[in-house]
Amino acid sequence: MIKYKRKHTSSIIGNMFPCTSIRKGLFAMDFTFHMPVKIISGEGCVLKNGNLLREFGRRCLIMTGRNAAKLSGALDDVLKVSGETGIEATVFPEISANPLLSQCRNAAYTAEICKADFIIGIGGGSVMDAAKAAAWLASNSSADIKSLMECQLRRPPLPLILVGTTAGTGSEVSAASVLTMDQTGHKRSIVHPHCYAKLAFADPRYTHSTPRDQTVSTALDALSHAIEGWFAPSCGDVITAFGEKALPMIMDGLCWLAAHQGLPDSSRREGLYYGSLWAGMVLNATGTAFPHPLGYILTEEYAVPHGMACAVFLPAFLDRAETNSPERAGLLYSLCGGRDRIRTMLDRLVSYAITMSAQQIEGYKPRWDKTPNFARTPGGFTADDAAELLRSMFTDC
Amino acid sequence: MIKYKRKHTSSIIGNMFPCTSIRKGLFAMDFTFHMPVKIISGEGCVLKNGNLLREFGRRCLIMTGRNAAKLSGALDDVLKVSGETGIEATVFPEISANPLLSQCRNAAYTAEICKADFIIGIGGGSVMDAAKAAAWLASNSSADIKSLMECQLRRPPLPLILVGTTAGTGSEVSAASVLTMDQTGHKRSIVHPHCYAKLAFADPRYTHSTPRDQTVSTALDALSHAIEGWFAPSCGDVITAFGEKALPMIMDGLCWLAAHQGLPDSSRREGLYYGSLWAGMVLNATGTAFPHPLGYILTEEYAVPHGMACAVFLPAFLDRAETNSPERAGLLYSLCGGRDRIRTMLDRLVSYAITMSAQQIEGYKPRWDKTPNFARTPGGFTADDAAELLRSMFTDC
Repeated sequence: MIKYKRKHTSSIIGNMFPCTSIRKGLFAMDFTFHMPVKIISGEGCVLKNGNLLREFGRRCLIMTGRNAAKLSGALDDVLKVSGETGIEATVFPEISANPLLSQCRNAAYTAEICKADFIIGIGGGSVMDAAKAAAWLASNSSADIKSLMECQLRRPPLPLILVGTTAGTGSEVSAASVLTMDQTGHKRSIVHPHCYAKLAFADPRYTHSTPRDQTVSTALDALSHAIEGWFAPSCGDVITAFGEKALPMIMDGLCWLAAHQGLPDSSRREGLYYGSLWAGMVLNATGTAFPHPLGYILTEEYAVPHGMACAVFLPAFLDRAETNSPERAGLLYSLCGGRDRIRTMLDRLVSYAITMSAQQIEGYKPRWDKTPNFARTPGGFTADDAAELLRSMFTDC
Repeated sequence: MIKYKRKHTSSIIGNMFPCTSIRKGLFAMDFTFHMPVKIISGEGCVLKNGNLLREFGRRCLIMTGRNAAKLSGALDDVLKVSGETGIEATVFPEISANPLLSQCRNAAYTAEICKADFIIGIGGGSVMDAAKAAAWLASNSSADIKSLMECQLRRPPLPLILVGTTAGTGSEVSAASVLTMDQTGHKRSIVHPHCYAKLAFADPRYTHSTPRDQTVSTALDALSHAIEGWFAPSCGDVITAFGEKALPMIMDGLCWLAAHQGLPDSSRREGLYYGSLWAGMVLNATGTAFPHPLGYILTEEYAVPHGMACAVFLPAFLDRAETNSPERAGLLYSLCGGRDRIRTMLDRLVSYAITMSAQQIEGYKPRWDKTPNFARTPGGFTADDAAELLRSMFTDC
């Protein structure tokens, strides 16, 4: 046994190291970070990791929309691995865009009837958000909808696995579920740790069958997540790093779309998908600002696709950000390839032909009474500001 | 109700966007990401978030070492918030450096006796790793040690909260627990999702009472995590981003320590702590390469502190990385402020006066039969390579 000795204890000289430049800007580090979803990404990730499904039980309900899960190849892959691992699967293919709570309830009933041990949601944000609600309702069969929307259900949800097919929502990696109320047609969100998936498969190939319009809109949704989150008070150093990854990837795909017809190549689509996941992690940590709740109105009343509807408000949001957070805005623009690049891209891809009456706009105000999103806007944002913005954009006078 | 219309559908012209430079190097994105610990960081984070403890029950066991938890102020803060929230706390202050399994067992017994609903570990890597094992043993009172080391315990662990007091281990954010076997004195790791804390409080102030020697060694540990993980096959884009944050921060503190006596200012210590968390997230995703298992020998037999013991092998590790992964090595060096900067720093801070006999070295070989760490070394690494390296470093001939 040889004793360990230290050398050189007294030979240290002055500071020869150029530390200052590297330290600059590193230390805005207070943060809360929670992202419990196990994400498995890459081509063929479902087929390669089918054995993981066994951990969740012997019977599952697979929730999908009408087409995307099938067209993308994701449903076939999931059915293949569930077959190989001896899991009994029931498919519930009835989730629509902007899913209704009643659809989630129906899926939860189906899960109960087929005694599902877990739920797999395959699709875009609508299906994944609906799957989150259904998984929670399925284990609380007697619960009313109000309890779900207030996250007051007694039992935890069935385990949930998500398989994304669009490059936008980031629902794979978030604790949020946006649902449409049957009676009012309004969108409302629930955000709760019980909405996290246990496992998310992220295979960019599943996004290849998304048509152009939807590719544009979902990419704009991802961009909105990254941009709105970027300026949120809770966007600390970790989340900024996620935004730094997301923005160039999403911008690359969007700029291609702004300059070309058709669809980008698989490498750019891959970038869009991974960018949407990073942006989802930003969204999950920060929440969104005013473009999202204002966008809901365009979706609910003018059928504008969700991502496009949020992006309609991005130029106005960036105006406020430039005024109130000029440093952050400068950094954002440099990640996006410059102010002109993002402004031109938005100008080309985002369009609307909407008019609203002044009375109609006044009628929206009560919806904004308790909107936490407004407080996440640089410089603040009030219901009056929202009404004024809608007037300036959508009324003739 | 006004119909939404799209404009500009046919006016798109050629590619005006300089996308290529931004795309370069973005797409090595297949990854698995799982980091379920809820991390709450920042000055005063325990006092500000004491209400969170209530979620875990009414009685807790607090595991600490002999001094650090008290000296750092962390124990007082935790006792204050547990008192305020009506939680009955029992302190078990008997965990040593390189904690023995028997200590974990004793802590688990204590948790049972005081009917703890959850465990809080306050300290450096040793205490946090021991708390992981104790939390799992406490809910499996009849289990033998072999079952723990093989992660074959029947029930999940008690909920675990970790409060770090050193800037090195990253145990706050990892699923690993390194324990010392009572009989052999050898270190062994368990890695399992049940070793994740539910919650980690990361207050950099708690690291301020760490003395200089330990500050150096723990920072070298964090550097080893970031460097070894950087070259691991599973270091995808997400984890690379974590390394990109960790390396400049850790290097900044270490270079200061290499050039000065005493201790760095609170801003640099803060950087060291956050850097160690980032590096812990790298480690958690990638595992370590050969410096860690070889370092265990120096710790077990020569009482070299863990971080210092790993860093002894970093120059040899970097030599292999330069040869076998020159591009990654180049990027690493640029994040560290250049090859000379990191080599000079290691030369100044890392020292050893150890000799080994050739026979002794041969005797270590069976330990390396099933070391997954070796396969994570750029260019590969065998038991023969390890023996040859030890010979070249520690024998006279």
